[in-house]
Amino acid sequence: MMNIAVAQSGGPTCAINSSLVGVFKEAIKEPEIDAVFGSVNGIEGIIHNHLVDLKSLIFTNDDMELLRQTPSTVLGSCRYKLPDHNEDDSVYKKILETLKQRQIGAFFYIGGNDSMDTVNKLSEYFRREAADIKVIGIPKTIDNDLCITDHTPGFGSAAKYVAATMQEIVRDSSVYSMPSVTIVEVMGRHAGWLTASSAVLHALGETAPHLIYVPERSFNINAFMKDVRQEMAKHKAVIVAVSEGIEVPDVSVAEQTACTENNIGEEKCEEAAVSYRSGVVDNFGHKYLSGIGKYLEETVRKEIGCKVRSIELNVMQRCSSHMCSRTDIDEAEAIGAAGVRCALSGETGKVMVFRRVNDMPYTIVIETTNAANIANNEKFLPDEFITPAGNNINDNALKYFLPLIQGELNIIMDRGIPKHFTIQESVLK
Amino acid sequence: MMNIAVAQSGGPTCAINSSLVGVFKEAIKEPEIDAVFGSVNGIEGIIHNHLVDLKSLIFTNDDMELLRQTPSTVLGSCRYKLPDHNEDDSVYKKILETLKQRQIGAFFYIGGNDSMDTVNKLSEYFRREAADIKVIGIPKTIDNDLCITDHTPGFGSAAKYVAATMQEIVRDSSVYSMPSVTIVEVMGRHAGWLTASSAVLHALGETAPHLIYVPERSFNINAFMKDVRQEMAKHKAVIVAVSEGIEVPDVSVAEQTACTENNIGEEKCEEAAVSYRSGVVDNFGHKYLSGIGKYLEETVRKEIGCKVRSIELNVMQRCSSHMCSRTDIDEAEAIGAAGVRCALSGETGKVMVFRRVNDMPYTIVIETTNAANIANNEKFLPDEFITPAGNNINDNALKYFLPLIQGELNIIMDRGIPKHFTIQESVLK
Repeated sequence: MMNIAVAQSGGPTCAINSSLVGVFKEAIKEPEIDAVFGSVNGIEGIIHNHLVDLKSLIFTNDDMELLRQTPSTVLGSCRYKLPDHNEDDSVYKKILETLKQRQIGAFFYIGGNDSMDTVNKLSEYFRREAADIKVIGIPKTIDNDLCITDHTPGFGSAAKYVAATMQEIVRDSSVYSMPSVTIVEVMGRHAGWLTASSAVLHALGETAPHLIYVPERSFNINAFMKDVRQEMAKHKAVIVAVSEGIEVPDVSVAEQTACTENNIGEEKCEEAAVSYRSGVVDNFGHKYLSGIGKYLEETVRKEIGCKVRSIELNVMQRCSSHMCSRTDIDEAEAIGAAGVRCALSGETGKVMVFRRVNDMPYTIVIETTNAANIANNEKFLPDEFITPAGNNINDNALKYFLPLIQGELNIIMDRGIPKHFTIQESVLK
Repeated sequence: MMNIAVAQSGGPTCAINSSLVGVFKEAIKEPEIDAVFGSVNGIEGIIHNHLVDLKSLIFTNDDMELLRQTPSTVLGSCRYKLPDHNEDDSVYKKILETLKQRQIGAFFYIGGNDSMDTVNKLSEYFRREAADIKVIGIPKTIDNDLCITDHTPGFGSAAKYVAATMQEIVRDSSVYSMPSVTIVEVMGRHAGWLTASSAVLHALGETAPHLIYVPERSFNINAFMKDVRQEMAKHKAVIVAVSEGIEVPDVSVAEQTACTENNIGEEKCEEAAVSYRSGVVDNFGHKYLSGIGKYLEETVRKEIGCKVRSIELNVMQRCSSHMCSRTDIDEAEAIGAAGVRCALSGETGKVMVFRRVNDMPYTIVIETTNAANIANNEKFLPDEFITPAGNNINDNALKYFLPLIQGELNIIMDRGIPKHFTIQESVLK
């Protein structure tokens, strides 16, 4: 008999609690496993011996159904990166102490990139210390930027929300007779997966988004303005999807043009430019407190003078469980359960991953990879997903995205609002 | 036999197309009514004789079901205010010409405040010209600020989206162990109905929103900062709901305090202050390109220095049909249908309104009022809905809000995304 522990880490998604359900459900079926501990605030809970007994909090199938439709992390989260244990193993000692004291034989870490680094380092340390504690990573991130795995739990729900909302924004922006530009800012600092996924609307016959910009391609404000003008000639209401992470030097269009025209060269321009995110006042006395969407809005207003609006989908794109993908939620549960079976089979230092066998009918299998293959790596949109002009997504990318957003949960409601599963603040303190 | 015309006006909501369905469904049942014309872009379509034959566009019950779940205005919209016909009746002549040419005996205008002004003026003009054309207003607005009617179609769906999203934001903001403040900016320039409706979360046992500010109360940045500090002492993650329309003079907290302390007086301070919406650079060199949420975010960051985020629910709160209230959609259809019966009974210059008979079980009846009673008037939150401190909503308001957000549509999906009913752009041109 052994106990196990599970923790959730990194930024919220709609599917992290479903992976917790997967671990929990599989664990309570296993006669080998006794207590299932939840670590409060990710690995920090293990470090500070702050664990809760999940069997005393999750009782019924209804509880688990509610957890599946509750966004974010019911056990709290953290952003904590372990040091190199060869340089400083004091935190590792604390972790080992908690795990031994609680007789924990397997630890499951649901998280992104940094969490998989933790899985890797912990498993190495336990090997060194000859401690028989399995460490298994369960991936999650709306950014979909983890290597090896076909996609990450959490991404499908975020993509479904973004696409559904983008379509509603298309309806909303098309009502007046005057021409307009609407810029929708989507999460994704380095990888454009989520922004690109809005192209699924093309499969429904929507012409929008008319322009899609991702961080995988360099962004030029002059090219952008040219693109916008071209689309305005074709469509009354132009819809632009843009990743928060595209890099724009904070010079005006006029200035960039001047640089090009006077042959000063890009480099000099870049040098003179101040990042729009830096908060420094630019040459026009503007301070861009906001993101790229607001910046592009201001530029279009200044250069074209038409009706223009920018919309930041903000945290809604990672927590709108009411519009989650059933495929995503089911897969998140399945990959959590698979993690438990993996640990029981004696493996450690592994991360569970999806391999896609087929697009249509959509078929995936769950496999494992060494955590080292995923930790500290990022996966970017493949070149063939992006149009040659770098301002939209090719239709051949849709067969990748579409299966991930299929299906809905029958959301359990309470007085007109989705019901959430929560743990009292006092228990988590 | 006569034809009828229907038009949609003002800002989008989730329920305007449902009212169109109500008018259309009732009209095609009536042997008295032949063609049902849709006017493109509100009253502008009548002025320019730009009408579409709705029977050639809406065929099946499925079409009508799709329309019920499609946000915004399928016929386009406008922001057009008729002049006084005693001063200039040239536009009225054009309208009358179109209506006579098309043998239209009744015109239904689905819209807000300004549209009801149009209903009033047109019906007066037709009386003066002895033209037997009935004009009936069907109310709509997410702002819920029309007089006489208990509430407006469109509000319930917006309120349901705001509450559901607010609850998801609560989950999202509660994951980390550090204290944080999240400010959610909700639509409502003059009336705080939609912002106030987020208090329904209290009925579900949520402590959030911990603070709610509406335009019905004067806003003081010092009092706000005091409120935030008090709530931070009680809750790790403080959630603030704020109407976009609250008025904040753009002076720093330090300056406001200085004004008070030095007894310079409010007036002088106000005079020195520049509205945060004016776009003028303030005393600190900041330019507030964004709304109140961003302003409060910056203030909290400067004064407290904690983790703080502002979220603008933007157009999503008026177009997120995927999270609409079935009560709202059904009522919007019913009030459209009632409009047709009202016209057939010989009335004109009327607006259809809801009278609430009972909160629980929730019962309403549809009645009429003279358009003049609704045009150019605004309805504000009653005093008793707002807490004495002016920073939250009383529980006794919940019995008003809760019935309006009940029920969901069985959304028809297409490849993972809600299916919308649209009319080809070429038809609407």
